[in-house]
Amino acid sequence: MVIRSLENEKVKHYKKLSQKKYRDLWDEFLIEGERFVKEAFKEGVLKEVIVEEDMDVSFSVPIVRVSHDILKKISQVETPQKIIGLCKKRKETTIGSRILILDNLQNPLNVGTIIRSAVAFDIDTIVMGEDTVDLYNPKVLRGTGGMLFHIPIVFFDIKLLLPMLKDLNIPLFATSVSNGYDVKELTKEEKSRFALLVGNEGNGVKNEFLEQSDKNLYIKMNEKVESLNVAVATSILLYEMRDKSD
Amino acid sequence: MVIRSLENEKVKHYKKLSQKKYRDLWDEFLIEGERFVKEAFKEGVLKEVIVEEDMDVSFSVPIVRVSHDILKKISQVETPQKIIGLCKKRKETTIGSRILILDNLQNPLNVGTIIRSAVAFDIDTIVMGEDTVDLYNPKVLRGTGGMLFHIPIVFFDIKLLLPMLKDLNIPLFATSVSNGYDVKELTKEEKSRFALLVGNEGNGVKNEFLEQSDKNLYIKMNEKVESLNVAVATSILLYEMRDKSD
Repeated sequence: MVIRSLENEKVKHYKKLSQKKYRDLWDEFLIEGERFVKEAFKEGVLKEVIVEEDMDVSFSVPIVRVSHDILKKISQVETPQKIIGLCKKRKETTIGSRILILDNLQNPLNVGTIIRSAVAFDIDTIVMGEDTVDLYNPKVLRGTGGMLFHIPIVFFDIKLLLPMLKDLNIPLFATSVSNGYDVKELTKEEKSRFALLVGNEGNGVKNEFLEQSDKNLYIKMNEKVESLNVAVATSILLYEMRDKSD
Repeated sequence: MVIRSLENEKVKHYKKLSQKKYRDLWDEFLIEGERFVKEAFKEGVLKEVIVEEDMDVSFSVPIVRVSHDILKKISQVETPQKIIGLCKKRKETTIGSRILILDNLQNPLNVGTIIRSAVAFDIDTIVMGEDTVDLYNPKVLRGTGGMLFHIPIVFFDIKLLLPMLKDLNIPLFATSVSNGYDVKELTKEEKSRFALLVGNEGNGVKNEFLEQSDKNLYIKMNEKVESLNVAVATSILLYEMRDKSD
């Protein structure tokens, strides 16, 4: 059966997932394009596949066939794909020892880019603070380059987390544009066990958090430049803190 | 006098500058926000200042006062500023010896971010290939964080440029995700004189250019990740290639 009506209950359900409140309510999100859908399947989070009527696919989950027009309506990206996956959110509850904390980041492309770099440079946990942009925003998903499923992502209140890190003996590093500690000077030990906290695009890390950090890291650069793009700065820090083969 | 009409010739002129063809025809572009307008003034490229009627400004260039509504219509950004600068494009014709070449980059945020990183890591010339997104696109300008005026930017056909670099004895480095040369292995001499060529977000550097490069650089990372965001990858390469105090 091919669904051709916008009034179909399934179609209504998928369309609602463009809104964060429904993604939160149902713990579901959509992911677009064959590559990402395959990744979701491998990771065991794929619940259903929505495809254009004549598309040839085989997944061992229910397959929902819709017309070209309906698929376009469900799609949340500018260049719609022929295949969309309905995924369940995975709830991570454990925390590793090479942690990246994102506080109040607002640009979805920055967040996606940072997640991709975090996988590249062997971060083992990402903590998303409550006021950071929704992880399941389609622009974030695209920015990750399919890496979303390769790293545990935890949602937690940063205010509560910071004292817990102290208890767990995990040093907290924050970023600051001045009065910092050159990331190149970190020891092998410091690179092996840490939580790195990065903050908002315009305002940086909140003062109340900066005060709790063990070290504020900076990147040496030409003094004409006040700050780098936050995704670039975070990626360079993670690149330096990758402790393999140094 | 305060301009309150959309039919005013000046207003029509400013509004046309949202289109690349008029920016190209008149060699002009708009820049928004006090900080950027001041930078433009310092660099001698500011021709006129457009401000909301009651705004207090002093620049030794003509000041055009417009109503709040007109300013909003001229503005090309989502959160309009109270001050906009009309700038003339600067034509750079000389080329340095720490060169970054951008070929067919399409995302304006990536291009702006890369320009910012290039200033941070002491690149002395950026070459924009013909099919890269327009430098004077408001999203590019915003992404540079005001750094546009701090680096010479040259527009040139990359096909013609590459043989010229050989003549000038400037080694060409390109980026490739596999079969590359770890950027960490570059010598001090190699970092002091080079042209780094980066390519399109999806497709990377064109094969015809890759073949002409002296070295293809890569960044060591977890093998799960196929590639980094292009602005991140370029910034890490430039960070490594900054030869000061290494």
